[in-house]
Amino acid sequence: MTRKLPSFLSENMNSLWMTEDERENLKIDYRIKEIIFEDKSPIQHVMILDSYSFGRMLVLDGVVQTTSLDGYIYNETISHVPLSIHSNPKKVLIIGGGDCGVAKEVCKYSSVEQIDVVEIDQMVVEVCLKHLPEVSGGLSDPRVHFIFEDGVKYIQNTSTKYDIIIVDSSDPIGPAEVLIEKNFYQGISQALKDDGLMVCQSQSPIFHAEVMEQIFERVQGIFPMTKMFTAVVPTYPGGLWSFSLGSKKYTTPHTEKINELATLYVNPQILESCFSLPEFIDKQLGKYR
Amino acid sequence: MTRKLPSFLSENMNSLWMTEDERENLKIDYRIKEIIFEDKSPIQHVMILDSYSFGRMLVLDGVVQTTSLDGYIYNETISHVPLSIHSNPKKVLIIGGGDCGVAKEVCKYSSVEQIDVVEIDQMVVEVCLKHLPEVSGGLSDPRVHFIFEDGVKYIQNTSTKYDIIIVDSSDPIGPAEVLIEKNFYQGISQALKDDGLMVCQSQSPIFHAEVMEQIFERVQGIFPMTKMFTAVVPTYPGGLWSFSLGSKKYTTPHTEKINELATLYVNPQILESCFSLPEFIDKQLGKYR
Repeated sequence: MTRKLPSFLSENMNSLWMTEDERENLKIDYRIKEIIFEDKSPIQHVMILDSYSFGRMLVLDGVVQTTSLDGYIYNETISHVPLSIHSNPKKVLIIGGGDCGVAKEVCKYSSVEQIDVVEIDQMVVEVCLKHLPEVSGGLSDPRVHFIFEDGVKYIQNTSTKYDIIIVDSSDPIGPAEVLIEKNFYQGISQALKDDGLMVCQSQSPIFHAEVMEQIFERVQGIFPMTKMFTAVVPTYPGGLWSFSLGSKKYTTPHTEKINELATLYVNPQILESCFSLPEFIDKQLGKYR
Repeated sequence: MTRKLPSFLSENMNSLWMTEDERENLKIDYRIKEIIFEDKSPIQHVMILDSYSFGRMLVLDGVVQTTSLDGYIYNETISHVPLSIHSNPKKVLIIGGGDCGVAKEVCKYSSVEQIDVVEIDQMVVEVCLKHLPEVSGGLSDPRVHFIFEDGVKYIQNTSTKYDIIIVDSSDPIGPAEVLIEKNFYQGISQALKDDGLMVCQSQSPIFHAEVMEQIFERVQGIFPMTKMFTAVVPTYPGGLWSFSLGSKKYTTPHTEKINELATLYVNPQILESCFSLPEFIDKQLGKYR
């Protein structure tokens, strides 16, 4: 084989492997059936790989973002928690979310009239719609509008007022770091209606406990009501993942709403229990109460 | 270095790594600071390794069993759920549990008078007491009795009647396979008092969904009341882990009991929410209701 593989991929005994450096002292090796797509966008290195253990995976700069096997857990959690809290969401903004999995979940709500997806990397959206249907659902709903722009700039400049804003960002290291700055949450608050709410992923409570706390503290500095919830995402380091909710008025899910929707992870009991925090997280966040 | 390393360990660019084959198409590489202990017992290959990401780890036949970083999550869950359900547990049997982490948790209950730990491999107990204090707590409670014997044989022959039996087994592949056979659960039921209950770990709902269901079905075939609960164990594949509960009389936790105890993961809200199953598990087990 003469073709040059990107550094995350290697061949070993006739099988292909993708190695992810979770942190410098921990690596995960996924055996790969096939490279479905591989290219560099102006933003990052983009791959769709078909793996033996997780099915097709979106890999950005060598980091697994979502997979066919478990993408629904993250996408359902970050979507249905806020959508079930708001009694009548009509305008929803998704910042990031290029894999279209969050937009797919939001489309399940008939009350929603407009879904704006602000994703910086057009290539991610295109390849996920084409090659990752288990996550993106091949999304073709007329309510969804893609805006290929930097999320921070969009928030500064938009005059639209949203009911719900979902920040589905990659890890807040490097380019995505601005997505956890105080100014950004301030902008989000301004882009929300008076009864609006926002959620963002806030990293692993075990491996990134400080980042999680920083995000929660900043959200709490802006919003009158703040809550944290968790889900188990098998392909993220440590499995346990945290999400921060900032709201102007409501934080209680209408759990019965979920019964009408087709879901694989979230159900009425999960909408309640996701707010039950393990003791070590509860203690860590105790000072913000 | 002339010393021969076991096959799970390798040296790479002056650093030492332990590679775990989670399943044949997925590997996890842990960077190791130091080999604290390494030997073969009559049962298996036993190591205590000091890792960069998880601290000290117990590794049996190349598979990580428990770590200083997250061992408490598994041990607290499998212990405090049954101990908080029983109103006055006095005699507790632990089958397996050689790392002593479950015994350490059970010792927190002042009502408990006798804790029998039936572990097949004496070397595991000895090295965990000596080298893995974060998990074993260096356990030296006079209520704890170690019995170095095969758990299946012990259950067949014991005349003691227990309030609670906790099956803390390794993966039910190879030697531990007998620990999920119907006869074994039958024996457990006979070794329990009329208001007794048992719990066992029942593997990953994502990667071992069939094993999980098989265990649940068998427990349900023997016990009048059955429930499943989950916890997030970062070092187990997929993070999400299931536990099956079989009871003769009671299945509701007295959540207030946990308030008096020092815990890091389990608290009153976790004792309730751990029974809230994600939709895909709820559906899978629906036929047993």
